[in-house]
Amino acid sequence: MTLYPDDVGTGGTQEGVGTKRPGGRAARVRRDVLEAVTHLLAEGGFGALNVEAIAARAGVHRTTIYRRWATLDDLVLDTLRSGARQAIRVPDTGDLRSDLRQLLGEIAAALATPLGHAVVHATLAASPYGSRRSTTRAKALAEVREAFWATRFDLAGEVLRRAVARGDLDPGINLRHLLEVLVAPLYYRTFVLGAPVDAGVVERTIELVLPSR
Amino acid sequence: MTLYPDDVGTGGTQEGVGTKRPGGRAARVRRDVLEAVTHLLAEGGFGALNVEAIAARAGVHRTTIYRRWATLDDLVLDTLRSGARQAIRVPDTGDLRSDLRQLLGEIAAALATPLGHAVVHATLAASPYGSRRSTTRAKALAEVREAFWATRFDLAGEVLRRAVARGDLDPGINLRHLLEVLVAPLYYRTFVLGAPVDAGVVERTIELVLPSR
Repeated sequence: MTLYPDDVGTGGTQEGVGTKRPGGRAARVRRDVLEAVTHLLAEGGFGALNVEAIAARAGVHRTTIYRRWATLDDLVLDTLRSGARQAIRVPDTGDLRSDLRQLLGEIAAALATPLGHAVVHATLAASPYGSRRSTTRAKALAEVREAFWATRFDLAGEVLRRAVARGDLDPGINLRHLLEVLVAPLYYRTFVLGAPVDAGVVERTIELVLPSR
Repeated sequence: MTLYPDDVGTGGTQEGVGTKRPGGRAARVRRDVLEAVTHLLAEGGFGALNVEAIAARAGVHRTTIYRRWATLDDLVLDTLRSGARQAIRVPDTGDLRSDLRQLLGEIAAALATPLGHAVVHATLAASPYGSRRSTTRAKALAEVREAFWATRFDLAGEVLRRAVARGDLDPGINLRHLLEVLVAPLYYRTFVLGAPVDAGVVERTIELVLPSR
């Protein structure tokens, strides 16, 4: 899973053939800084975030950060926005259960990484109980959180929409809710129970939740 | 939902008839302090916890706290332990769907309270990414977290065990997993999506997850 796919770059000039990462210096710096934010969030939550630590981790000067992001919150919002479209590989095996097995397996694996933890902790922090920031900022975070999950559900929902098109799922079913109930156990086990999510868990969840054939 | 049922008191002498809360002064102080910890956790997470704030909120002297709990972590562990057996009302309507409607409705309502948030944030903090405490402390927290959820699942599982006894559920079904998949969407919506959990959500979850009649 790539942290930041190429399409989130701010533009910048292409550096041409031979450059390992596409995008100009501006895009590269943004990517490095947002990766640094993600990792610091994962390690210690919002309390661990400060410009010095971010600059050190990203290998840039602090002034570079000050110049591009007015506040730490702007940085966090930018990180969440960029993360929303991070590559979800949407499987297309022609079979709903196989597709779901792959999709849920990848989500479970992603959740177990520091990045996965960072995203969830960042969205948790947008909850009314998760932070002490101002109402305006909390509202901005909540909006970004909503947009974040809407994007993710839209991407992952492709698997279900294809199943409906093939006639494998009742078109009357609420796909968003079905998807929620399918992925919820992965989050619940990872973040609340602290229990592993292996292939068996994914399989049992699919068998319980999916309408029987 | 009571915060701390009477059976968690440390003993203490009974003060006799007329006392509003049962248990002696020691039990009362413990209850007040653990309630203070719970509310402070709910408001600001672990970062907001300090002995001064706890003492102020509980209306006790700081020395009372120092005398009874060696460290803040001991206080948090004690709070989690006490919370595990907090009154879950286990419905018994004679019908599995009605029982689940009530049980899930109560869990959803509890999660939306500061106490619910405190419990989840405390158990989240026991995750490897949720805190910066020492390995020993993280291990202790993880153990308490496991015991906490085992107790909760045991209590709530009564509804499913009764359904099996009545012949309404296949005895071969993994009840723990069924319960996990039933409650996961409540946690997921509350803490990850930040979306409300109303009666409709509970109903759709039951209909999706429960084996059809």
